[in-house]
This record gives sequence, C-alpha cells and structure tokens, in this order.
Amino acid sequence: MKKLINAPEAVVAEALDGMEAAHAGLIKVCRAPDFIMRADAPVAGKVALVSGGGSGHEPMHGGFVGRGMLDAACPGAVFTSPTPDQMFEASKAVNGGAGVLHIVKNYTGDVLNFEMAADLARADGIDVESVIIDDDVAVEDSTWTAGRRGVGTTVLAEKICGGLAERKAPLTTVAEMCRRVNAQGRSMGMALAACTVPHVGKPSFELAADEMEIGIGIHGEPGRHRVKLETADRITEMLMEPVLADLPFKSGDPVLMFVNGMGATPTVELYIIYRKAAEIARKHGLKVVRTLVGSYITSLDMAGTSITLLKMDEEMLTCWDAPVLTPSLRWGA
Amino acid sequence: MKKLINAPEAVVAEALDGMEAAHAGLIKVCRAPDFIMRADAPVAGKVALVSGGGSGHEPMHGGFVGRGMLDAACPGAVFTSPTPDQMFEASKAVNGGAGVLHIVKNYTGDVLNFEMAADLARADGIDVESVIIDDDVAVEDSTWTAGRRGVGTTVLAEKICGGLAERKAPLTTVAEMCRRVNAQGRSMGMALAACTVPHVGKPSFELAADEMEIGIGIHGEPGRHRVKLETADRITEMLMEPVLADLPFKSGDPVLMFVNGMGATPTVELYIIYRKAAEIARKHGLKVVRTLVGSYITSLDMAGTSITLLKMDEEMLTCWDAPVLTPSLRWGA
Repeated sequence: MKKLINAPEAVVAEALDGMEAAHAGLIKVCRAPDFIMRADAPVAGKVALVSGGGSGHEPMHGGFVGRGMLDAACPGAVFTSPTPDQMFEASKAVNGGAGVLHIVKNYTGDVLNFEMAADLARADGIDVESVIIDDDVAVEDSTWTAGRRGVGTTVLAEKICGGLAERKAPLTTVAEMCRRVNAQGRSMGMALAACTVPHVGKPSFELAADEMEIGIGIHGEPGRHRVKLETADRITEMLMEPVLADLPFKSGDPVLMFVNGMGATPTVELYIIYRKAAEIARKHGLKVVRTLVGSYITSLDMAGTSITLLKMDEEMLTCWDAPVLTPSLRWGA
Repeated sequence: MKKLINAPEAVVAEALDGMEAAHAGLIKVCRAPDFIMRADAPVAGKVALVSGGGSGHEPMHGGFVGRGMLDAACPGAVFTSPTPDQMFEASKAVNGGAGVLHIVKNYTGDVLNFEMAADLARADGIDVESVIIDDDVAVEDSTWTAGRRGVGTTVLAEKICGGLAERKAPLTTVAEMCRRVNAQGRSMGMALAACTVPHVGKPSFELAADEMEIGIGIHGEPGRHRVKLETADRITEMLMEPVLADLPFKSGDPVLMFVNGMGATPTVELYIIYRKAAEIARKHGLKVVRTLVGSYITSLDMAGTSITLLKMDEEMLTCWDAPVLTPSLRWGA
C-alpha cells in the first residue's frame, strides 16, 4: 500500500486537522464527537443542512461545509457510517432556530444512524427533516444498501439546498427541494482500478490489466458487470445509457451534467468523458445548461469516473448559481 | 495502460473538445494552431496573460483561462512544448492593446519556443514581456532544463498577475510582479508512483512497492534521490526542509502555502500533508496567510505531492484575493 499517510488509524483525524488548519475562518472542527461546521454557524433563522457518511469520499462532505452549502458534516471512519451522536451534536451546534435538514446517502448504516440522530434532536426540541439520496441506477440492492445507492446527486443536492436555505426558505421547502433534486437526478459509475482502504492495506478487489467494472459503488462494491476495457467513448455510452433510460425527461429539458473523478483520475480524462457525454445528451434532445467536472465524490484512490444527470428547473438553477464558499466548491463569494 | 482515453494521439484534442463543451461562455478553443482563450478576449486596455506548455499537467494551464487569470493557454502534445505559432497566434488574439505577458515554465523547449513567439509578436507590433518561472529547489539542472524547473509557483503567478492585470496595471508592472512572485516562490515534489504517457503505454519509471522518489519533476524526471517509503510526516519534512532552506524569509513573514496533488492523489492525503507542512512553517516563524490545497499542476496519473511556499506582500494578497472565474479556479465572481 503506497499512500501519503502516517498510520491507517490516524487518517481521518489527521485529515481533519489539516482541513481545520487550511480553512480556519471558513470552517471549524469539533471533536468527540467529530464534525466539521461552518465557522459562523448557527446562522439565526436559516435552515441548517447536516450531512455525513463514511470518510474516503473527500471532498464530500467536509469540503462542502461553508456559506451556501452545508452547515455541518459528520465524518465516520473510512467507509463506515458516522455514529448518531455525531449527527445529533452537529444538529444542535448548527441549528439556528429554523430547523435542520439531514441529507443522507442511502446506505443501511447511514440511514439507521441518521434516523436515531433525528429522533434525539427532535426529543431535544429541534425540528428535523431527513431526505435520503438514492440516485445510482447501477443496481437495485447492493452490499450495503436496500434499494439504490446514494452517489453523485448528493453533491448537487447539497449545493442546491444550500443555496435555497441561504435565502431563508423554511425547512419544509428546503426538504421538498432536496426530494425533488433526488427524484430528478441519476448517476452511474465505473472503475479502472480498485481503491485500497488504509487499514486493509490491499485493493478492495482485483481487476486484470484489461478489465474494468461497470456500475461500481463508491466503496468498491460490485457493479453490474466486469468487462474488458473499452475506449473512453464506449465507456461513456455504457454509463449514459442506463442513466438516460431511467431519467424522467423529455426532449428539450435542461440538465446539469456532472462528470466526476473517483479519486485517482486525472482531469484530462474527465474532459474526454465529458466530451462524449455531452454529445450523447445532445442526441437525446437534452439541453446541458450547467456542468461540473472534477473529483467531488470519490472512493479514496480508485481510478474511474461517474456521470450524474440532474434535470433542472428555474428554481434549481437559481440555487445552483447562488454564491458558495466552502473549501472545495466556491464561486460568487 | 488503463486510462479513460480513446487513442493516445487523440488525448489532447479530445480533452480540448470536452473543455470547450463544458465551459462555453467562459472560454473558447481555437484550432490549428491550438490554444484556449477567454471568451471575451481581447479586453481593451488590459495586459493579456499567455501561458502554455506540454499537456498532461491539467488543469494547468487551460483550466486557468478566464476572468482574473490567463487570457490564453497554449497546449503542446503531452509533455512536449507548444510550437511558436501557437503562442504567436494566441498573443495576437488576446492582445487588447496594452501588451502581452508570457509566463513560461523553465524547460528548454518552452523557453526557446516562447522566445521565438515573442519575436514574431514584437515584429507584428505587439508589446511582449516574458517571465520565466524556475521555482523547483530539487535540482539545479535536469533532463529538460538548464537551471531550475518551473513548477507550482507558476499557478500562483498566473493567479496573482491575472488579478493585477484585471486592474489595468501596465505591462511592465505586471511583468515585475511576475518576477517578484517567482523570486519569492519555492517548490519541491515527490512521487509514490510514476505516470504513464499515453503514447508510451508504460510507466515513465519503476518504483518498488517500498520506494518513493523525492524531488521529482512534473514529467517524471529523476529527482534528488530514490529512498524507502516514509510516513506522510517524514515526507513532508523532506519536502519542506529544502524549500525553507532556499526561501528568502525572516521570522514573521506571511506566506501562501500550496499543497498540490500530482494527479492520482486523493484529497484526504493532501490534507494530511498540509497538516504537517503548516506545523513546520509555524515552527520556522512563518505566518500562513493563504492556502491552496488540491491538484492544480499535475503529471497525468502520477501519485504524489508537491509543496510550494510563496512569501507574500500586501499587493500580492490583494491580487490573490481578487475575483477569478476560470474552469478550475474560481472565487468572488
């Protein structure tokens, strides 16, 4: 295992130290239980957004804490759900009196622990809504999921709902927007090479030099099929076809196209994928009105990509374009 | 070779297609000769910034074209200098009457070809200044360089000079700032694993499972020494020591710290490096006033990191903080 780490058990805590040192003024890191919060939270009268999940998907979620996006993020151990007390304490810390939205990726541990945290917060007098993101069209059930997995649409939901919350929309409205983003977003991913979990020390699975895995999850869970390596254009077709087959759209609809790197994928390759994906979208009559290209929801050092399409509407566009100032996503602020 | 590409010879052209499709409105791509330019260039009365170099270092330079940074970027073939006609045509296209600054990384081919382009542009009546970036403390001469190589400080120079040019500073002032940034910036990098150039098809060099290369260049040129793999903290010390030994600073000086990923390095590892680098800087009395953590100057799919320290002054800070709107770096706009 070749990694820039000190010890497998120190990865999460030391990365949090680094984030705190690098982005003081923007975020602060609370410990025992661990969570990252907006430096200026709680913001009075604003719905607070709390997300979280296993570590290893950076910059998601900690890199999205700040103005116009998340109020807090709760990091678990690598690929392991955070505990309910993390989400409970985070919810208490960032609640500005307008309630808290939990944005939860659909993995069994995350769902259960966020549910428990919501119960604790409600018992404490905090208004909580939860939205589960389950946008991965690759598989219906998986290693760690009943139903579809939550992947790329999570990033988009966090940005769009963050923009809406910043305008002081009420909790039910922000939660409704989050459900709409989830209902209109679809993703699928693939891997050229597996990731290596630090405390395991070897790749999660082995792919031969001429093989790839289509429909992979963000923890290296098996996908739809393992097939021979193909060209970037063919790979893009293999990702776009199931996404388009499942996306509720009609010709002329505006979409946001998000081409994501899995952690060890160079930017130049993501643009080669984007090129073909945009061409396929056009052929289907979709109008790509916004784009995001980069590594935003990753799987440690996995090499690969995922494509997310989100059918947009005017309000989503306004919220997407709104200023955001976080460690890993920023514009207009 | 496992890459998300269609054919080695198509990588650069297809990535340009993808960038153009993804960022229309912000940039446009001109072809034969190839360069990326600001969609709204030329900007009347503004000094135009032109950079370029071999491809494979994305997002540098094309990802930095836009408002507040570069006016044009000229991509060569992978790890190969662009040709003089690229820089000449780009300079003509973006010159807004206030002259053009060429920002050139110190590699023999780049230096010669930018010189020729500057001569052609001057003969065409365009005022051109050139600044060579040579901030890599690892080696004095290298495979492709007389003198030090140009690496991470290039990104910072492009941002700072872009901010200054946007305020309509004259050419001599912008060039002087670029020389000052270069004089006050120092970098050093390392690799855990080599990159694979598409048309070569195998890694540029081999590192054993327990080895790393310290002082590596951004094309996989040999560094200072190949040594046994160490912890992230020890690696950070090995990068920071030569940078600090060479940086002209006194206790209390403000610096920008840039921790860069080489292309296949997950964000979480960069923050572990940042943590230790910031601690070392503090111990030396440096005041880290700005940070940049991410993969901005890469070497295809190389795994590794580099650290750049730039001694800042008030004017640099103002220019760094100024709005920037490019495909890969944006804030305040």
